[in-house]
Amino acid sequence: MSSLAQAQPGDLTFVSNTKYLRQLATTRASAVIVGGSNGAGSARAASTRPPASCAILRADDPYSTFARAVSLLAQAAPPATGVDALSSVARDASIGAGVSIGPFVTIGAGASIGARTILYPNAVVGAGARIGDDCVIHSQVSIRARVVVGNRVTLHDGVVVGSDGFGFARQKDGTHLKIPQHADVVIEDDVEIGANSTIDRPAVGETRIKAGAKIDNLVHIAHGVTIGRRALLAAQVGIAGSTTIDDDVMMAGQSGVIGHVRVGKGAVIGAKSAVLQAVDDGAFVTGIPAIAHGDWRKSSALFGQLPAFRKRVAQLERRIAKLEETLGRWRKPTKRR
Amino acid sequence: MSSLAQAQPGDLTFVSNTKYLRQLATTRASAVIVGGSNGAGSARAASTRPPASCAILRADDPYSTFARAVSLLAQAAPPATGVDALSSVARDASIGAGVSIGPFVTIGAGASIGARTILYPNAVVGAGARIGDDCVIHSQVSIRARVVVGNRVTLHDGVVVGSDGFGFARQKDGTHLKIPQHADVVIEDDVEIGANSTIDRPAVGETRIKAGAKIDNLVHIAHGVTIGRRALLAAQVGIAGSTTIDDDVMMAGQSGVIGHVRVGKGAVIGAKSAVLQAVDDGAFVTGIPAIAHGDWRKSSALFGQLPAFRKRVAQLERRIAKLEETLGRWRKPTKRR
Amino acid sequence: MSSLAQAQPGDLTFVSNTKYLRQLATTRASAVIVGGSNGAGSARAASTRPPASCAILRADDPYSTFARAVSLLAQAAPPATGVDALSSVARDASIGAGVSIGPFVTIGAGASIGARTILYPNAVVGAGARIGDDCVIHSQVSIRARVVVGNRVTLHDGVVVGSDGFGFARQKDGTHLKIPQHADVVIEDDVEIGANSTIDRPAVGETRIKAGAKIDNLVHIAHGVTIGRRALLAAQVGIAGSTTIDDDVMMAGQSGVIGHVRVGKGAVIGAKSAVLQAVDDGAFVTGIPAIAHGDWRKSSALFGQLPAFRKRVAQLERRIAKLEETLGRWRKPTKRR
Repeated sequence: MSSLAQAQPGDLTFVSNTKYLRQLATTRASAVIVGGSNGAGSARAASTRPPASCAILRADDPYSTFARAVSLLAQAAPPATGVDALSSVARDASIGAGVSIGPFVTIGAGASIGARTILYPNAVVGAGARIGDDCVIHSQVSIRARVVVGNRVTLHDGVVVGSDGFGFARQKDGTHLKIPQHADVVIEDDVEIGANSTIDRPAVGETRIKAGAKIDNLVHIAHGVTIGRRALLAAQVGIAGSTTIDDDVMMAGQSGVIGHVRVGKGAVIGAKSAVLQAVDDGAFVTGIPAIAHGDWRKSSALFGQLPAFRKRVAQLERRIAKLEETLGRWRKPTKRR
Repeated sequence: MSSLAQAQPGDLTFVSNTKYLRQLATTRASAVIVGGSNGAGSARAASTRPPASCAILRADDPYSTFARAVSLLAQAAPPATGVDALSSVARDASIGAGVSIGPFVTIGAGASIGARTILYPNAVVGAGARIGDDCVIHSQVSIRARVVVGNRVTLHDGVVVGSDGFGFARQKDGTHLKIPQHADVVIEDDVEIGANSTIDRPAVGETRIKAGAKIDNLVHIAHGVTIGRRALLAAQVGIAGSTTIDDDVMMAGQSGVIGHVRVGKGAVIGAKSAVLQAVDDGAFVTGIPAIAHGDWRKSSALFGQLPAFRKRVAQLERRIAKLEETLGRWRKPTKRR
Repeated sequence: MSSLAQAQPGDLTFVSNTKYLRQLATTRASAVIVGGSNGAGSARAASTRPPASCAILRADDPYSTFARAVSLLAQAAPPATGVDALSSVARDASIGAGVSIGPFVTIGAGASIGARTILYPNAVVGAGARIGDDCVIHSQVSIRARVVVGNRVTLHDGVVVGSDGFGFARQKDGTHLKIPQHADVVIEDDVEIGANSTIDRPAVGETRIKAGAKIDNLVHIAHGVTIGRRALLAAQVGIAGSTTIDDDVMMAGQSGVIGHVRVGKGAVIGAKSAVLQAVDDGAFVTGIPAIAHGDWRKSSALFGQLPAFRKRVAQLERRIAKLEETLGRWRKPTKRR
């Protein structure tokens, strides 16, 4: 499996982004997956052909087809099943069949681990936490007490689930009284969370990542947040407390949402945006604060022209002053007539 | 303990944000803490009453009162005291009475741990580091050599304290000579630092987080920074090297401050702002670069109207050109007279 | 070794930032490194002299000279060599001479560790990963399977290298099919990566951090990214997938680059910028989206004046309407003549 540019004889590759189509003519790959006869970019694909030595495999969705090929051909070897002698598993923990528990893994009192779940070295599962079946918990992950994780969940290295929400009540002397954060965190089935992302627990209610949501690296999910089904959150996104991100929302990198609002189903948030109020279902917003994406694009394109605007306005003021002055002089003789 | 919306019979809940007051009428909670007769929102609270089955508890500060109730009723069980057999504690380390040291914890040579401090699994304390009494150090935390941590400090999972500051001197050949970062980091009493935040050490001087400061998740504190007493830094904030954040400053999420400046006592920094110069005591600044919050609000509200402005300016230019042309034609006959 | 302000008798200090020159007159240091006779700021340095008790050491580059002095005088004691009894090293792993492997370190099957490399407590090296000579791998680092790390590389605490890129193909039912991310990550010689930063692996091709690049804390490098030689990435930077950051690029804190573009050799990206298209060699861009830095500076300075602009434009519209009305009245009598 290889990229179009780096493929060698014997490699299988693919083209889904038409930006890379022209590389097709010179690829050294032995086979390439391209758009089908009715796929997007198929017209251009037809005009740019790989060398005769390269087989063409047509698919309606080359990217998904490639994904399936990778799964078949490049499956990483899973670690051996069993419980490493150098792990620390509480006597009353419930451990499913076929698990793989690596060295220096800690499983707290009363925790449960589902069947075939893999815990890489140094993962920590707190007391009373429940992890489902077929999960992959990478190294340095911390799952705090009583967190609930569904089935087929992947947590990448360094993820923290169930740390305390940032909740303090300001006292009259200016100090901050901690609001204890003891409530629930639920990660539903088929969620994937990227390296070093953090998911806080709330004082009351729950933090919930719904089924099929995918979260990238270094993302912050505050206490009491709900992330909807199949939502996609790119790297370094931050969601403040008690906000709801509805199903199928897409958030681009480094964007953020204020607390206590709702981002509607299927909404799209542009890169680096700051959402400071509720967003309607299906809306596409960008900017700081976020506004309709089309408006943001047009206004952003003009931002660099502010000095020219200022000059034009100043010029208009001078021209109009001159006109006013001219007319002022004229008015008097006119009146005399 | 529960939220207003999710409370069941038997639950205690509270209302502090007036936004949620209307939920009071339908709560299933058995008791609710609301603002006192002279508390904020008490008028509205009086008009929106919970069902007869729900007891009303009045408090001047419902949020703080709720916090105290949670501490009484929902106290998490602390881990057992003692030193886990699977930990690695240097022989010359000083270990206080009543500590709890979990599995796979490392305590380096000459380090000291205060009384009743809890170290969760996998925490690492470097050589010569000193941790005070009653601290809670969560899993995957790394406290580097010689770092000093006060009393009643909480470090959430994955926090790094004492990593090298980002200090390099550019050489004539374009490479970067590392400035060794060996100086001190001090975390004073009653500080709380959120998951996966990082606090760097400097080459000289010190990095210091003063008493009572609270720092959220994924925050970056560079080398030589001072964070003032009771400062609040929300998630994903970044502070560049040698900057001073004075007492009682509040920084909203994803904001940042440039190096070598001072943010004055009690200043407030809006979400996603970039502070590129010193900020006065008590100022409220927002934006990139940060300006007075009021100015930023007004200007931000107009940003989306830039295309309309451009149109209006172009229209003015056309109208004034027409006037000038008209007057130009008139001037000649006038002069002839 | 100390800073100018905090130095005590017996300390060596330095001045490189002219901002701190006036502190020279009152330093208690015993010696201070300042710019040479032809160094920058030397004129001002000459006019601000330290007390007679303080020796002056002249150097063309005071910062680099100070760095070398720190290396000589303040060298941190490295941990003892050897393999800790509480580590987990695969039987077929290759371990170089003079390594230091701390407690709770895991070295996977077939991995290799070069000579004199230090692995601090809890570091995890995946199966088949290769680490070069003289590296320093701090606590809580996770190096995933088959990652390649060069010589003299420093990875600070909590760094993740080789986690899965954020690659999914949207299916017709709205779910996301994972594109398996099994390809290579290469960290070349003399790279330093800050605490809790994350470097993803791609599905095909490779992610590569080239020789001498320096990366600060909490930085996200997505799948398939190339970071050029000697590039400097400040804290909380994010680079989206398949983008190339060329040699000698400097990115200020909290900036980000979209996927599939190239940032040219020696380019500079301002703080908090969002680069949404390719950047030319040597360009300096800032803003969201990033534009030429000079344009951004001028426009940013005017941003807070948008309300005043609006007022001026509205005033112009009223004044011109009045003129038009006046001339309209005049036109008729003129025509009658």
